[in-house]
Amino acid sequence: MENIFMTKIEKTMQHIRSKIENHHLMMGARLPSVRMLAKTLGYSVSTVIESYDRLVAEKVIESRQGAGYFVSGTQTAFPQHELTRLVDREIDPLWISRQSLIAQPQVLKPGCGWLPGHWMPELSIRKALRKVSKQHTDLLVNYANPWGHQPLRHWIARRIEQKGIYIQPDQVLLTESGTQAIDLICRLFLQAGDSVLVDDPYYFNFQSLLKVHRVNIVAVPYTENGPDIEQFEQIVQLHQPKLYITNAGIHNPTGATLSTHTAYQILKVAEQANLTIVEDDIFADFEFVPAPRYLDLNGFTNVIQMGSFSKTVSASIRCGYIAAHPRLIDGLINLKIATNFGCGLLNAGIIYTVLSDSSFRKHLEGLKLHLADHMSKAIRQLEKLDITPWVIPKGGIFLWCQLPKHIDAAELSKICLKYNVILAPGNAFSQSNNASHFLRFNVAQCHDQRIYEVLEKAMQELSDEA
Amino acid sequence: MENIFMTKIEKTMQHIRSKIENHHLMMGARLPSVRMLAKTLGYSVSTVIESYDRLVAEKVIESRQGAGYFVSGTQTAFPQHELTRLVDREIDPLWISRQSLIAQPQVLKPGCGWLPGHWMPELSIRKALRKVSKQHTDLLVNYANPWGHQPLRHWIARRIEQKGIYIQPDQVLLTESGTQAIDLICRLFLQAGDSVLVDDPYYFNFQSLLKVHRVNIVAVPYTENGPDIEQFEQIVQLHQPKLYITNAGIHNPTGATLSTHTAYQILKVAEQANLTIVEDDIFADFEFVPAPRYLDLNGFTNVIQMGSFSKTVSASIRCGYIAAHPRLIDGLINLKIATNFGCGLLNAGIIYTVLSDSSFRKHLEGLKLHLADHMSKAIRQLEKLDITPWVIPKGGIFLWCQLPKHIDAAELSKICLKYNVILAPGNAFSQSNNASHFLRFNVAQCHDQRIYEVLEKAMQELSDEA
Repeated sequence: MENIFMTKIEKTMQHIRSKIENHHLMMGARLPSVRMLAKTLGYSVSTVIESYDRLVAEKVIESRQGAGYFVSGTQTAFPQHELTRLVDREIDPLWISRQSLIAQPQVLKPGCGWLPGHWMPELSIRKALRKVSKQHTDLLVNYANPWGHQPLRHWIARRIEQKGIYIQPDQVLLTESGTQAIDLICRLFLQAGDSVLVDDPYYFNFQSLLKVHRVNIVAVPYTENGPDIEQFEQIVQLHQPKLYITNAGIHNPTGATLSTHTAYQILKVAEQANLTIVEDDIFADFEFVPAPRYLDLNGFTNVIQMGSFSKTVSASIRCGYIAAHPRLIDGLINLKIATNFGCGLLNAGIIYTVLSDSSFRKHLEGLKLHLADHMSKAIRQLEKLDITPWVIPKGGIFLWCQLPKHIDAAELSKICLKYNVILAPGNAFSQSNNASHFLRFNVAQCHDQRIYEVLEKAMQELSDEA
Repeated sequence: MENIFMTKIEKTMQHIRSKIENHHLMMGARLPSVRMLAKTLGYSVSTVIESYDRLVAEKVIESRQGAGYFVSGTQTAFPQHELTRLVDREIDPLWISRQSLIAQPQVLKPGCGWLPGHWMPELSIRKALRKVSKQHTDLLVNYANPWGHQPLRHWIARRIEQKGIYIQPDQVLLTESGTQAIDLICRLFLQAGDSVLVDDPYYFNFQSLLKVHRVNIVAVPYTENGPDIEQFEQIVQLHQPKLYITNAGIHNPTGATLSTHTAYQILKVAEQANLTIVEDDIFADFEFVPAPRYLDLNGFTNVIQMGSFSKTVSASIRCGYIAAHPRLIDGLINLKIATNFGCGLLNAGIIYTVLSDSSFRKHLEGLKLHLADHMSKAIRQLEKLDITPWVIPKGGIFLWCQLPKHIDAAELSKICLKYNVILAPGNAFSQSNNASHFLRFNVAQCHDQRIYEVLEKAMQELSDEA
């Protein structure tokens, strides 16, 4: 595998690696001496020393003082256990997450919850990495103060402030992810056996998280305008939930948005019952016109807002946040230190650099238009297959679609997985399991024509069986 | 604040910022039009547009379509609530963590648990950031598979394999931090009310973490060679703990190391009682000669090893790992997805790049010698004050020291904090609270002569009071 662009050091490393791969050098074997290899390859001694040093760092070879260099432990290729398909596993919320996370590149993922990599602001991130590589030592090696990277917290506080909400930056706490933000809130509020209110349908990972907390999950039907007000009131009276966890803005999985009227009615019930609403603002950047937030009406009296940057900046650069009433912050910080110790600065520093880059704002504008375009295309394609959206979303990535009556979404998902298409079947999102004829589509992942071909074929198979 | 190195764009941004700070432009005020400002400053229109765009991205100003640019919300300086000192708070485990994490640069931290920033491999990290900025899009924007960044997991597996332990890379799971690794293990093994065994003294954040899990903490006295074997056996019989959480290699806070003999005796008890030992290998890189690990003797039958790179690579680039028996991995992954969703790739990618850099290994060798030098200097300085080490550590950063009988470590710590020196008083590490005459010193943070001056002064004050 000669490459003319390789440096001499890389060529030397490649030379040794291939000798090991071809079993010319077995495990534990002594490598040629530096001098001898330099002579053989016609390179300088220092080139070979540096190559050996790098291979030692990579743990491919070992150096033994006075004895030379030796091939390290077992060099056999590692079996790909980790990529074992979970085909036969029950389709539960974790099934979709794990399927989507382990999917090989050739697999199509219309059911997954994030954008394709090439839709992300890759150039802004590369720029930010180079910029950060020149910044202060603290950012690179030290813990943040317990609240986290200050400029990013100020940025988040200002975004909230622009909605007319009074907020101090020390009401904002950075976390390692949006999910960790909710986990910390749960740890602060909940004990095993408490009741927690969610929407039906709702984001399936809320269920996985709440199960870890061993709480009683109760669900309120979600309408086109937010939760069903009457049922919300009844459930609150009956179960006295400690938290109501929901999405801010664009609802996952339905794509519906809260109306101001509903928000107001729900808040009245919540205030009276001393119920705290946790709104996950993770889809904020996808809105053309922002839908009302509970926070906009209530401030931080009964509302905690949290979010992350994984949908529009990067899922690889983990960083989330909590914005809450000052009385809650101290307890959240203690929990964060106890369960995760200090905040890092680097991820937040990179995210902040991307957010402050004017080209990122332009990227977002383009992204929203691009999404709207894919949304209408996906609707048209799905309708041809008699798969119809429950509501036409005002923005975002999700389409919550109803299947023909005789098609079960879980069955369909199992068949499609065999054809390398990962769907998100409705009941994974439904506490009452009444969404067996629904699928959630991510329009950003629906471009490939093969998805519709596989869907059609799988639906045909199911119809034939029936 | 004119600066000749500023670009025209930066100068324009500075011009607007200072107008806002000096209240020449009030909140909500309209900014000069682009054309007018370009004329005033003698710059091009495109320079001013780019400056305004960046200020919009920073949320200092807002753009309103067709109306121009306006000063954003409140621009008042944010009060420094977040830096409020916790002087009067009770000295509990979280006290030290929070004090150390919020300390201003002028504060001396001989009690804190990490190296000073300039001891860290800053250049390798800057190099790694530049290298990573050129790598594949996936690394920058996507989730990892649920196990985390593959090359780093393979690197960790090989390090374990070199000790003669059989391990597959899919037995290694990356986490957001070492603390998160233990938290996930606790979530897998423990229910509220279970017993967990720790050392006395032990790393104080284990206590904070275990309190979150609402478990019963029982402690075994730590000797110079590891836990007291006889008492270990009695406690295991009496309390039937589910986990024993300890440090691998260099013990925190004592700096003592486990003997092979003790390890073997402890393992026999653990195997018989079906007790799982969690060993935190965070200080591995500080050892000259590796002390025995429980893992070396037992493999993964009754042992879980975890660790992170925060001590020797960076505390800012959060990344930890768990290495465990295959039967535990699936449950740990489900918990990780539920409570933190996907792993990021970026942090692990940067850490891996640093670890693979041959200059990092050289840095580590230098670091260890540097530490040994600081260790002997600190011992000499402390002994002059009649503060004596309980054991002379074979490596690492910690010295566990006994104070003169009449000096209470918590009292001393409170006085020293007034003089801007943060100590780590013994009882924060002791489950039985029998370490009131002990302090933990971090020799890497003990270089400044003022520490010994403050200690002497504070000890004098306490002696005078008595």
